[in-house]
Order: sequence, then structure tokens, then C-alpha cells
Amino acid sequence: MAVYTEVTDEALTEFLALYDIGTLLAFRGIAEGVENSNYALKTTQGDFILTLYEKRVNPEDLPWFLGLMEHLAAHGLSCPLPVRAKDGHNLNPLAGKIAAITTFLAGVWPRRVLIEHCEPLGAAMAKLHLAGQGFTRTRKNGLGPDSWGPLLAKCEGADGVLQGLNAELTTWLERITGAWPKDLPVGHIHADLFPDNVFFLNGEISGLIDFYFACTDIYAYDVAICLNAWCFERDFSFNITKSRALLRGYMEHRALSAAEQAALPVLAQGAAMRFLLTRLYDWLNTPPGALVTPKDPMDYYRRLRFHLAAKDASAYGL
Amino acid sequence: MAVYTEVTDEALTEFLALYDIGTLLAFRGIAEGVENSNYALKTTQGDFILTLYEKRVNPEDLPWFLGLMEHLAAHGLSCPLPVRAKDGHNLNPLAGKIAAITTFLAGVWPRRVLIEHCEPLGAAMAKLHLAGQGFTRTRKNGLGPDSWGPLLAKCEGADGVLQGLNAELTTWLERITGAWPKDLPVGHIHADLFPDNVFFLNGEISGLIDFYFACTDIYAYDVAICLNAWCFERDFSFNITKSRALLRGYMEHRALSAAEQAALPVLAQGAAMRFLLTRLYDWLNTPPGALVTPKDPMDYYRRLRFHLAAKDASAYGL
Repeated sequence: MAVYTEVTDEALTEFLALYDIGTLLAFRGIAEGVENSNYALKTTQGDFILTLYEKRVNPEDLPWFLGLMEHLAAHGLSCPLPVRAKDGHNLNPLAGKIAAITTFLAGVWPRRVLIEHCEPLGAAMAKLHLAGQGFTRTRKNGLGPDSWGPLLAKCEGADGVLQGLNAELTTWLERITGAWPKDLPVGHIHADLFPDNVFFLNGEISGLIDFYFACTDIYAYDVAICLNAWCFERDFSFNITKSRALLRGYMEHRALSAAEQAALPVLAQGAAMRFLLTRLYDWLNTPPGALVTPKDPMDYYRRLRFHLAAKDASAYGL
Repeated sequence: MAVYTEVTDEALTEFLALYDIGTLLAFRGIAEGVENSNYALKTTQGDFILTLYEKRVNPEDLPWFLGLMEHLAAHGLSCPLPVRAKDGHNLNPLAGKIAAITTFLAGVWPRRVLIEHCEPLGAAMAKLHLAGQGFTRTRKNGLGPDSWGPLLAKCEGADGVLQGLNAELTTWLERITGAWPKDLPVGHIHADLFPDNVFFLNGEISGLIDFYFACTDIYAYDVAICLNAWCFERDFSFNITKSRALLRGYMEHRALSAAEQAALPVLAQGAAMRFLLTRLYDWLNTPPGALVTPKDPMDYYRRLRFHLAAKDASAYGL
């Protein structure tokens, strides 16, 4: 639930004067989102989103993220389009942060994932992968396999969450990174395509949002992140019907090679490890009374255990 | 920052079918607000606010709050108008709570109060008091003087916030309630008219929101609450220019009698005590990791000390 930075009226007025988007009608903080401050902005020309980038986003990455969004939108993907100021810039200072205005997308993110959501989600992800292909600049995944060891090392107190967790994760981490695939197709991936970043309208996907973890990495790793984020039930049982629908939707637009399919278990293990570690770190390092309640890392421990038991892609319904 | 209750797509669709306000286009949690869950709702017919009433609101009071808002809107005050469902009800169940849809108000609440805000604020409050006069049902102030003693008794650990605080507040509480005025004009007051409940557009007030502390109490007590909420600077110095502007704006529409003016110091003491005590209670009783960060009660301790030193209404510029 995120509004970390308050914007004064004067600062907002000054900021909006940089743009040619009409005059201010309303400005409300948006509860969704964890990393940045988001405001719903209404002007005489319509609805927009104003985002202030907070400390976990590297300012040097912002032109890449916004460039990717512009490229994706220009290639038919429904995603927020950064609005350019009169001088052509799409990033400008506001309240001591860097900020951007993007277009508003209609739609509602699914609070409860149903089977019907999964095929369109898979299809949208494949279209995202294809639409990104002409975008030539790349961005390394800052939360890829080589970041996990250092992240675990910073999770002092992990054994307070679960006795023996540190040793267990160390063992698994070696196993996963040792088996990490090296020759799979790579491109721009979303890397955080959780349900709250996917809007639906009338049963169809109306848009994808929040590209601030996007990076250049293994396509099938994006699929593996979604298997984690969309296909487990609240009791942490894996719903293979959802998984099949997700993969079917994806493969209707982009085939998964035999090598990509074979790598799904280790990629899904890695995806679970990545979210387990960032949540564990936040869990151990969020001060009481912080604005955002940390998410329970054990949700991903349970997912990880499922993927460690997966022998091959048949565990995901292939 | 408040979205306490998640609403599933299915529940939302079912709920919206009760109303004749078009079909769903977007649904986003609003960060502002502490007591209830608020969502920005966009349909093919426009923008609305959907509120789910959380546990601190007594469901029996809801018809009164919504009735007051309807009355005020019908009498020219710009405030959210409850939207009635097809069957005429303006309160309906949603996600295990009671919910209402209201109209959307344009405007932006002032993050930093300027002198220019205070005269319009005073005027709007007086208009609210006048507009409410034909609304015949009454509601006792649940956070009035007789609630403060029991509230303080529940603030065990107050001395951990400030050594001797419990004894100090007990003494002041007796002094304030002992001097509490008995014969001042009474009517419907907002009782929580803080800057985040007042929207401005182009330098004028565009609307007042959040009537869920409204009650039938001393008019001048509402003024005293605003003296606390609008006229102190960040260093807790009292800005008498803001206070004069606020009172001038108020008195342009509703005169304050000599007795009301004379009571301002004790009313302002009481208002500071009320917010000090509810904040102190929340401060001592909010579990770590709660969604809403409790506000520092000492902000109101400092205000209270100012009002205790006020000899008469001249302290507020009269």
C-alpha cells in the first residue's frame, strides 16, 4: 500500500506545467504497489498515473524501463505509455524524487485467480516477449541467480523464521544455480507478472503494468515466475489445470522448445528462490510500523519445495 | 493508507449489479483514509468512490451518516452523495462488510496548509453547520468529553511514551471537562475536518469528505478542532494569521456569540485532548506490522499545552 512521498500542491502544479495534459482535477494516492509511490491523476484531458520512483529503483534504469514501455505500446501491447513533457522528457524531478506520468489503463486485477485467467495471462506474456524483440538495449536482471547468494548472506536471522532454514536454502541454492540453464532463448521479460500487475476487463486482459523489474533474461524464466504466482492455491497445492491453461496460452503465441520445457523445474525453483529470498530479507529487515507489511516468505518456501520435487515438465502439465 | 478488505471480482460484479451506474471499467484502492477501505471505482457512467465500513464504524450509525450527506448535498454543500441501488438502498453488503457507493468529488487536499486555505475552510465549515440545520435526527458524539476518561484508563503504558503523562493528562482532563461549556449552540458538526478531508480546486474549496465522525455537538467545538488541525506549523508553533483567517471565514457565514468566543480555549483544549487520546490509544495498541502507521500522539500533547496557556479568544486572534 504505497504512498511514500507526499507531493505538495505547489510542487504538483509546477510539475504539471511541464506537460501538455490539461489542468488538475484530482490527485489521490493509490493503495496498490509496494516499490514506488503511485497517484491517480485526473486532469481536464483524462486519467493518468503519476509514479514517484522510490529508493529501490536505480534512477539509471528508468530510461530503460520507460523506453521498453514505449516500445511495447508501439508494438501493440496494452501497457502504460509514458507521457512526454513539452520538452520531450518523460522523467522529471518532483518532491525530491524522479517521477513519470503514464496513461491510465482500464481494468481490474484479479483478487482471486480463476482457471479462466490463466490462458489469457499466458498469451499476454508471450505477446510481451514477442513485442519486446525489436528493443535493442538490454538490462541485466538484478535479482538473477548470481544475486541470490549475497542476498541469503544478508538474511541473518533466517533460522528464527524456520529452524535450519539458512542451511537448507544454502544447499538448494547451490543445487539450483549449479543446474541453471545457459543456452535458452533470452529477451526482455516482465519478471514480476503477478496478478496485481495484470488487468482484466470483461474476461479479457486489458493491460499489463509495473515494468520496474523488467530485464533481459531467459523467456522461460518469466513463465516460471508466473507458474509460481498464478498456479498455487491458498493451501499451496499446485493447480495443474491452471498451469496447463497458462502454458497453452503462452505456446499459442510462442512455442517453448524441448530445452525450455525441460528446464521448467529448475527455472521454477529459481523463481521461487528469488521471491523467497527478497521476502525473507524484507521480513527480517522491515522496521515495525513501516508503511508496507512484509509478505510471509514461507509462502515461497512451500512453492520451492513443490518445484524441487518436480522431475520434469510433466509436473506442470506438459 | 487503507485497504483493509479485498473485494473479489465476482463479489464486485454482483454488488455493482444492484446499482444502475453502468459497467465496471476500473477499481483501485485509495491510499488515503485510516478508518475504512476506500476504492476509486470507474464505470461507463463516470467516477465513484466505493467505501467498505470497517470495524471502528458502528453499522447502526451508517444510515445517519449517509442521511446527513444526502441532506447536506441537497442543501448546497459539495460533499459525496450516496448513490442509491435500484431498490432504493444506499447501504449493501460486500465482502462481509457493509458498503456504499458515493459520487466522486474533484479536487486535491492540501498537503501543506497555507494561509490562503484557512478562510475558505472556515467559510465551508460554517456553511456545513448551516446546511445541516434541517436534518432532524441527531447522533451523540462518541468521542465527546465523557469518553475521554474511559479512553485514558485504557491507555496503559502512557508513561512509556512520556514520563508522568498519565498523571498529567488525568489532571488536565478534570480541568477541561470541569470547565466544559453547557449552553452553547449545538448542531451537526463534521468533527474530523482535517486537511485530508477538504478538497481544493483553483484556490477554492471543491468539497468536504469523510463524514464518519460527524455528530450532533457544539458548533464551536468543530471550529476548535480545525484550529488544532489547520493552524499549527510543523514546529508546533501556532500561526495566528491562519487562525484569524479561519475564524473570519467562519464568521462571514455564521456569527460566533460572545459565549462561543469565550469558550474557544477550553474547546480547543478538549479537541486536542480528544485527538491526543485516540492517537495515544492507537500508538499503544497497534500491533507491529499493522497496515496503518499510528500517528505520534505527542503532536497533540504539544498543541494541548498551547491551548492550556490560552487565557481567552485573543490567543486565536479574536
